[in-house]
This record gives sequence, structure tokens and C-alpha cells, in this order.
Amino acid sequence: MAATQGTEVEALDTPCLLLDEARVRANVARMRARLASLGVAFRPHLKTAKSREVARLAMGAPAGPAIVSTLREAEYFCEAGLRDVIYGVGIAPDKLARVARIRASGADLAVILDSSEQAEAVAAHAARSGDRLPVLIEVDADGHRSGVAPEDADALVAIGRRLVAGGADLRGVLLHAGDSYALSDPEALAAAAEAERVAAVTAAGILRADGLPCPVVSVGSTPTARFARNLTGVTEVRAGVFMFGDLFQAGVGAVEPEDIALSVLATVIGHQRAKGWIIVDAGWMALSRDRGTARQGLDQGYGVVCDRDGTPYPDLIVADANQEHGIVALRRGSTAALPDLPIGTRLRILPNHACATGAQHGSYHVLDGAGRVAAVWPRINGW
Amino acid sequence: MAATQGTEVEALDTPCLLLDEARVRANVARMRARLASLGVAFRPHLKTAKSREVARLAMGAPAGPAIVSTLREAEYFCEAGLRDVIYGVGIAPDKLARVARIRASGADLAVILDSSEQAEAVAAHAARSGDRLPVLIEVDADGHRSGVAPEDADALVAIGRRLVAGGADLRGVLLHAGDSYALSDPEALAAAAEAERVAAVTAAGILRADGLPCPVVSVGSTPTARFARNLTGVTEVRAGVFMFGDLFQAGVGAVEPEDIALSVLATVIGHQRAKGWIIVDAGWMALSRDRGTARQGLDQGYGVVCDRDGTPYPDLIVADANQEHGIVALRRGSTAALPDLPIGTRLRILPNHACATGAQHGSYHVLDGAGRVAAVWPRINGW
Repeated sequence: MAATQGTEVEALDTPCLLLDEARVRANVARMRARLASLGVAFRPHLKTAKSREVARLAMGAPAGPAIVSTLREAEYFCEAGLRDVIYGVGIAPDKLARVARIRASGADLAVILDSSEQAEAVAAHAARSGDRLPVLIEVDADGHRSGVAPEDADALVAIGRRLVAGGADLRGVLLHAGDSYALSDPEALAAAAEAERVAAVTAAGILRADGLPCPVVSVGSTPTARFARNLTGVTEVRAGVFMFGDLFQAGVGAVEPEDIALSVLATVIGHQRAKGWIIVDAGWMALSRDRGTARQGLDQGYGVVCDRDGTPYPDLIVADANQEHGIVALRRGSTAALPDLPIGTRLRILPNHACATGAQHGSYHVLDGAGRVAAVWPRINGW
Repeated sequence: MAATQGTEVEALDTPCLLLDEARVRANVARMRARLASLGVAFRPHLKTAKSREVARLAMGAPAGPAIVSTLREAEYFCEAGLRDVIYGVGIAPDKLARVARIRASGADLAVILDSSEQAEAVAAHAARSGDRLPVLIEVDADGHRSGVAPEDADALVAIGRRLVAGGADLRGVLLHAGDSYALSDPEALAAAAEAERVAAVTAAGILRADGLPCPVVSVGSTPTARFARNLTGVTEVRAGVFMFGDLFQAGVGAVEPEDIALSVLATVIGHQRAKGWIIVDAGWMALSRDRGTARQGLDQGYGVVCDRDGTPYPDLIVADANQEHGIVALRRGSTAALPDLPIGTRLRILPNHACATGAQHGSYHVLDGAGRVAAVWPRINGW
């Protein structure tokens, strides 16, 4: 059934994605206030939301700034008026034609890179096209993934010089402290944020010492954005998953469980009473295969089971999942009572990972303060 | 770039999904011949493909038979002429109105259930609507998920009688030996297939002994369909993932690695040479979060890395993945040499789980015998 304004959750086809708009607004306001108090700009990451309506809540203005994870996102958001945007995955040379088309539409789309090969391709593109393509050099904050080592002056300067010589617009440096996801101690998280800051400032200093421009010093991850105490030398912070929150970020301590705005609405379709199983129509296709909490102190299975209003049942999780079946059971060792949930009961399941769970769905059913569906917001997937 | 006929793989935007049509045809022909030799009908499961074009390759006729995992699939395929179809997830009473709309369009859509509560709802629906809704009773082959225990005569007869009394069309029994996915020994797989058969025949016998109809005895999973030796008493076998194959099913032994028809095309976007990492633009968003092979003898990470023509590099896997980054590295302990793959190199990645990887994409880029894109076939997601 297509949802219309004021629809009760009971009238929705399941499984589907629910979004608590008030929680998104509160999560964004909290992050915005925190970063303002630290004196840095906020560049929301739109890879979790992939929705123009959510982007409007997250961004300070329709023109941005923002960062995206795919060129499809860049196109989708720029068609809706986004202007200041970074494509936050290392640029492949054969994506430059698509970047140029997006820039030709009026958006100030910047790319990132971490090698001389990419700098050569981007410089050649800038020289050939006459477009002063903006570039940030990706710097490796913590050995997590991509990026030039922050103290590797030879590499940083070679990349920066090649870009400038080719006529590209060297904007600065960009880092992502992805290893912070593996932490949960506030002191360790504050230290990760400080390490990210120091790496950023180090790399920026190397560029500037060579006379290269570096107006932007961009860092960010939801955990380090939450725990940073000092951002001297940083100009902007990026974060995305905090808007919705999820069980994994709650395990890190970067969000509070009661602030999680995203859930999957499911219906009870069966029982295996001898085993203490309740079968629901949300399997891994609706919840995603993400099992990130398996590596944390509290393994949440495929998600925490709540009643239709969002209140968690004690120790009740999606213990296993098939494609379209979720197996709901008490956490191993629990002494709680299995709730009596007859066939047809509507449940909400909190996700392990908002980015992964959201991607399994084509829209958000947006809840108002009374728990009714106030709107349906489309979201995009793909590249 | 939108792909057109004859497009080279180099011209595609990455990441994207590639499908080798000749392998799909061969996989289907092999399964069809195998089941014909065992004297049973074949009901392909369309949950992996979610594509009308693939369904046409898999089905013996446009009208079916087939089985689907969502009502969205039922609608999508029935609009294209599918008539004989089972919705293979236990029916929730509030989905019956949507089932009725699909049936009113001319499709013989059957539902499954495993409880008296569902039988009561279905019988009441049949009595109220006058529609002889076809029903199969789901029977539990192996304790994997849903279903009435095959020897639980009281439950089977109570459900069957209630359905018949209400005017529903009791079609028979349906089982899925999902625990076969955990096996890899051919003898154990043959035993799982035989256990699935015996459970099916036992349950069917109980219904018939009570004078209830049971024309259909439906079993199936890709592993048991591959390893069954005797299907006496079974009328049809269902399987889906075998059409494409994947690394997980190769680990089970249910498909050969060289028959895997699905892969994700990716581009090299960076290196961390000191660590032996090659970074590609296919992360878990493109590959899925499925890590099913982690529980098998050979952990394939997030997928096996092949060259652009589909030939695997020795011991090269996607060792880790972020949302839009794959970290390609040699398998731990490998003595193979890391191949030199410059930025821009196109690679193909074989998936752990075809159902999960396919669901991350909106279409298949279909390869012809020369490795060129012969067509783009859309696929659906959602519910």
C-alpha cells in the first residue's frame, strides 16, 4: 500500500524503512552545535542518507557544503541545488569526464587523490579542459585505507606541485580516521581524533612550507567528530552516519541508543516455539548483511527488536537471518521472558549499520511525533 | 555512461554488475537435465535474478512455474506473464489483500504457511472472497527456519482441514533444506537431500491419510538439487542461486567456480604498496556485506579478484571493504606475487553470495561470448 500522510504504521507493507524526523533533527543540531563550539565548519556526508530531504535537514544551506561517496550522489544532489561538494573516493582518471559534466552544470565539485599517477591525470585534464578542477590530497590518518602518509613530504609536494602546474585548484588535505570505528573507550576516541588532527595539520604544513596552497584542512568520522576536544588547524569536519545513528555507533559510544532514528518495520509471520524463535518478514535483504556489532562487546545479531513504537524488548534481537526471514530470539544467556508476539504483530528493528540497511530500501517512511507516517522520502542507490 | 550494445567493458562506469549469459544458460540447462533425469518438475526461484530477462532463461515457459521471495517480485513477474507462482515466505494475514490483487490480474499465485493462525486467516479470506486461494503447508526439513515438523500429524491435519473447510485450495507441502548450506561433503549433501525428500513424503502421506489433497510435494535448495539421487514421491524441485553461482555455493560444492556467471566490475583507484594493498572502487556497497565464505574452509574475503576477462589472479581477494572502497590483497600466507595493477585497471570480482551482491545493483550488464556488453537487463529490489 502506498503510504499517504497520516498513515498508521500498521497500514504499511512490510518490511519497510522508518525514519524518525525529530531524532534526525536533534542529531544534526547536536553535531552542528558541537562543531561550532570547536570553531570548525561542518560538511555533512550524504552517503548514509542518499535523500534530498534528509540532506536539507543536514546541510546549513541548500548549496552545501557536503561530501558524497558516489558520482551518482553528486549528480542527484547537484540537480537539487548542491554547489559545494567533494566526491570522497579517490578519483579514477576515467571518471573525470563525468566529473566535468557535473561541474559544467554549475556545481563546485572537488575530487580527492593520493598518488602522482592520479595527479598527472587530473593535471592533464585541467590543462586540456581549462577547468580549474578543485582537488584535495587524501592523507592517511591511521593506516585504515587510502592516503599519503602525513609526514611523506616528497609525495605530498610532488602531488601538489603537479596539480598546481597543470592548472588544477589545490584546495587542501582530507583525512578520515576510519580506525576509530574499532574503538569504544572515550579517551582512546579522543586520542584518535587528536591523531587525525595532528596528521592533517602536519600534511597541511608540509604543503604550505613548499609555498603550495592549502586553504582546506578536512577531517572526520562520526566517532572522531563526537570525541574531538581540540580542532586547532582544522577548517572543517565531515560526518554522516551520526544523522541516523545505529547499533554499531552506539557500541563505539559515538551515539546514544535512544537517538537512533532509523529502523526497519517488520511483521511476525511465524514461530518455532520449542526453540524460542519468532519469525519475521525482515531478513538480511531488509536489514543488510552487516554484522559489525559481532566484533564489539555486545553482539546485536542482525538488529535489536523493538515494539511498534520503538521501545526495545529486553534482550530480544534478530539472532539470525535468511534472505527474507529474520529469526528473532533472546540474546544467548538472557533470563528475560520471550514476549508473546502473535502472527501479524508489527515490530521495529534497529540496524547495525545505517548506511548498509538504508541501502536495501528505496524510500524512508518518515514518522511524525505521533508515530504516524508524515511523508515518504525517496532515496537513491547505485553509482 | 549508459551502456549500449557492443560496449567494451572498459567503457562502463564502475562499479557495475556483469552477467555472463552463456554461463547462465549452461547452468540452467544442466539443472534442467538433472531434474528431468530424476523425474521431477523444476520450479526456478527468481529471488536471485529479480529480472524478467533472466527469468525467461530460467523458466521453461513464460507462464512458469516459478517461486518468488517477495510480493513485489510476484507483481513484477506476473505483469510480464508469469502465471504459476508461489510466494515462498510464510504469509502474513495483512498481505492477503495484495495477494488477492495479484490473483485478480490472472496469476495463479499460491501462498505458504505453517500455523493454525495463518490457516484460520487464509480460510476466512477464501470464504469471504470466494477465491480458492492455493496454499502449500510449509514443512520443516531440517530445523533451519520455518515449517511444521514433518511427523506432527496433529498440526498438519488441523491446518489442512481448516484450509479445506474454508474453501482454500490445499495444494500440498513445501520444504527447504536450508541447513544444506553448511555442508560441503558430497555424501552429507546427498544425505541432506534424502532427508528433505523423506520429510516431504512423510508430511504428504499424513495429509493424504486423512483424506486431504496433496498433489504437490515441493522441495529444494541449490545444494540438495545438485546432490539428490532419488526424488521418489517429490513432484517438483526449487532452486535459484545455481543460475548465477557464487563463491559460497562453490565452497559447498554445489557449483563449479568456473561456472559463476555474476561478477562486479571495478577499477583500481589506489595503492598502499608497503602493505601490499590495491584499492578498488567496489566496496561492500557494490559487493554486499555478505561474508558467508568466512565460515567455510576457504575464506574468500569479500570476493575473488579476476582480470577484466574473468580469469582469477592467484590468491588475490578483496581482503577488506569499506562502503565504496575494496582493499585487494593476497590471501594471508600466500606465496604468490602481487600483480602490478596500475590505477585505472579494470578487474572483475566474483561474489560470495549472488543474491546479496545482485541486490546492490539496479541492472545487469550482459556479456556476450566476446566479453562485450550485449544488453543491459534491469532488475528490481524492494518489497
